[in-house]
Amino acid sequence: MPSPLINTERLSRAIADLDVAALLAISPENTHYLSSVFIRTQVSIRDRIAVVLWPEQGDPTFLVCDIEESLARAEGSIEDVRTYVEFADSPVARLADILRERGLARQRLGVETKYLSVRQMEQLCDELPGAEFVPIDEAMARVRAVKTPGEIDMLSTAYLRTEEAIRRAWAQPSEGCTEREIANRMGQALFELGSDGVRHMTLSSGPNTIHPHMTPGTRQVRRGDTVLTDVGGFFSGFASDMARMGVVGGPTAQQEREYALYRSAYIRLLHAIRPGMRAADAFNFVREAMREAGYDLGLPHVGHGLSRRGGHEFPMLQPRNDEPLEPGMVLAVEPGFKPRADQRYHIEDLVVVTETGSRIVTDWRSTEAMLVLGEP
Amino acid sequence: MPSPLINTERLSRAIADLDVAALLAISPENTHYLSSVFIRTQVSIRDRIAVVLWPEQGDPTFLVCDIEESLARAEGSIEDVRTYVEFADSPVARLADILRERGLARQRLGVETKYLSVRQMEQLCDELPGAEFVPIDEAMARVRAVKTPGEIDMLSTAYLRTEEAIRRAWAQPSEGCTEREIANRMGQALFELGSDGVRHMTLSSGPNTIHPHMTPGTRQVRRGDTVLTDVGGFFSGFASDMARMGVVGGPTAQQEREYALYRSAYIRLLHAIRPGMRAADAFNFVREAMREAGYDLGLPHVGHGLSRRGGHEFPMLQPRNDEPLEPGMVLAVEPGFKPRADQRYHIEDLVVVTETGSRIVTDWRSTEAMLVLGEP
Repeated sequence: MPSPLINTERLSRAIADLDVAALLAISPENTHYLSSVFIRTQVSIRDRIAVVLWPEQGDPTFLVCDIEESLARAEGSIEDVRTYVEFADSPVARLADILRERGLARQRLGVETKYLSVRQMEQLCDELPGAEFVPIDEAMARVRAVKTPGEIDMLSTAYLRTEEAIRRAWAQPSEGCTEREIANRMGQALFELGSDGVRHMTLSSGPNTIHPHMTPGTRQVRRGDTVLTDVGGFFSGFASDMARMGVVGGPTAQQEREYALYRSAYIRLLHAIRPGMRAADAFNFVREAMREAGYDLGLPHVGHGLSRRGGHEFPMLQPRNDEPLEPGMVLAVEPGFKPRADQRYHIEDLVVVTETGSRIVTDWRSTEAMLVLGEP
Repeated sequence: MPSPLINTERLSRAIADLDVAALLAISPENTHYLSSVFIRTQVSIRDRIAVVLWPEQGDPTFLVCDIEESLARAEGSIEDVRTYVEFADSPVARLADILRERGLARQRLGVETKYLSVRQMEQLCDELPGAEFVPIDEAMARVRAVKTPGEIDMLSTAYLRTEEAIRRAWAQPSEGCTEREIANRMGQALFELGSDGVRHMTLSSGPNTIHPHMTPGTRQVRRGDTVLTDVGGFFSGFASDMARMGVVGGPTAQQEREYALYRSAYIRLLHAIRPGMRAADAFNFVREAMREAGYDLGLPHVGHGLSRRGGHEFPMLQPRNDEPLEPGMVLAVEPGFKPRADQRYHIEDLVVVTETGSRIVTDWRSTEAMLVLGEP
């Protein structure tokens, strides 16, 4: 029974275009997408693989470690759940058994060559000498890139709650607090607002803002510091990934000028996004705006697609991606700007590409000036 | 300059035994081990690889995405940091450049075949047709398995703080709270006690205890429910992974009997661990104890090694692992027991294998009876 959170039409078309008898999905993003259940140990215990066999015809099968069987049955959308016993069974051999049982052992099969390890692939080839294997990584990324309305709702909720978590945490008095204390408030607010966990948590202040992914530390934030967060949670299985900038007290004239320059280019990009725009042109748009002011861009991309797990997914808004944006794509837009050796600027909002243009999900108006920490 | 958190003697011996000119470490656990810095995006953005080139002779080189350069320089122990520009450069081609520059392009090189993707390996072979590649996965797992005193201190601190976080969260009134509310308290306590994040968070109650890794949900805990947590944080780069059981009000006679049976076998195992014991015998020890009482074991292993990132690492305490335990190994011991379709038992403590026996780091005496939630 296909879930309304899967774009089944694009999936069927991809399978037809790939001309495969079945997809073997093994990465966390693809198994989560196809099964509706996220099995955490797939990431933390990599040997404990989970595989979705999605045939061109007929029902899918989900192969999981028996430890995760109850979870796959309780939360997943695939009825045919098979298991292997860790250490006793080889999961790849079990997968080969299922493929033989379903008459797929000598067919053309789609595999994730960007996730499958060298050792897993060797074993798969040994087990199934008559099969032909073709890569499905890019095709599946394209399937996931265009969201159903249900997925857009889930991602929007995840972002709006994350935005609210930042607001709540930053409204509290912050001068003299450590980066970690402010980050912990954000973590707590994420939980209060329904997040199942903290996907990622960056909070840096003053000169630490130059590190894009530093763990919040013991530095005390002081008057005049800018504060930067890039943070995400998991809401009912959907991730968020957003960035906001703040300042303690008020900005210096230099900070105000730099931020206004950066934010102006950023906001113009948010409003320029529309179907048919090439991903590279989104990048070029911001780069040109900053070049006119005499600056380089601080990141090799200005945003990315994302799916349930978050991450950086197709379409990457980077200078070598000539693909056009399509309605239903969801973008985390986030150019970076580092005008000086000790100061970086960064904001990230969620944008949905619509039939006629775009819709900015998060409160882009709130970033007109840097948020002032300690003010409600 | 080797860090005191690396077992350099075992590392050198492994390199000699493998007879390789250099190791190419690419998995998060090995790059973290060898560089002392954890780059979060290595996990969340898998294309953004980080590689430690550790030669048989001379100094190591660390190749990272330029976005992560400042972090690698600020926190890492490897002086020679090289970078690639995302989308503009191929990271594997950059790695090949470095290998050519260091005269290693036609040598025997160690690679992680359990992490390296099919596509990365294809590119590596294309770039370096004169090189010979050999797997280093198992050898590196054995290097990491025996800890330095510094590593044991770090892991012990991580566990003791995690134990304290559970205590604090569970001491608060819990009857009528949802699983999520109690889990959120644990998350907050982890942060208060210095954790950089929540590695994993399982909290289940009543019949939900049968799912080993369910996300804490909206079920309200009631009098007579058992409560089970398996939780971990990150403390100064070292992970914890521990489990405790509790009960709301008091246990039923059946729960008390089942718990006493399970805990007795568990505690006897904790005290039986010593160097020279085969990993399989640790498993067999608990299995036999439970069989005598007429029960099967609920998990295919009874514990595991772990390193900075946590995870399940060598030596797995599972029935097919005949390797002897060695002094300096650190084990998360965690048999599972599911006597009924709606009830599971699970405890997990940290044990260090010493020269003469073992040392239990966490407070094993506190689990003599199930912890009562809501009691300090």
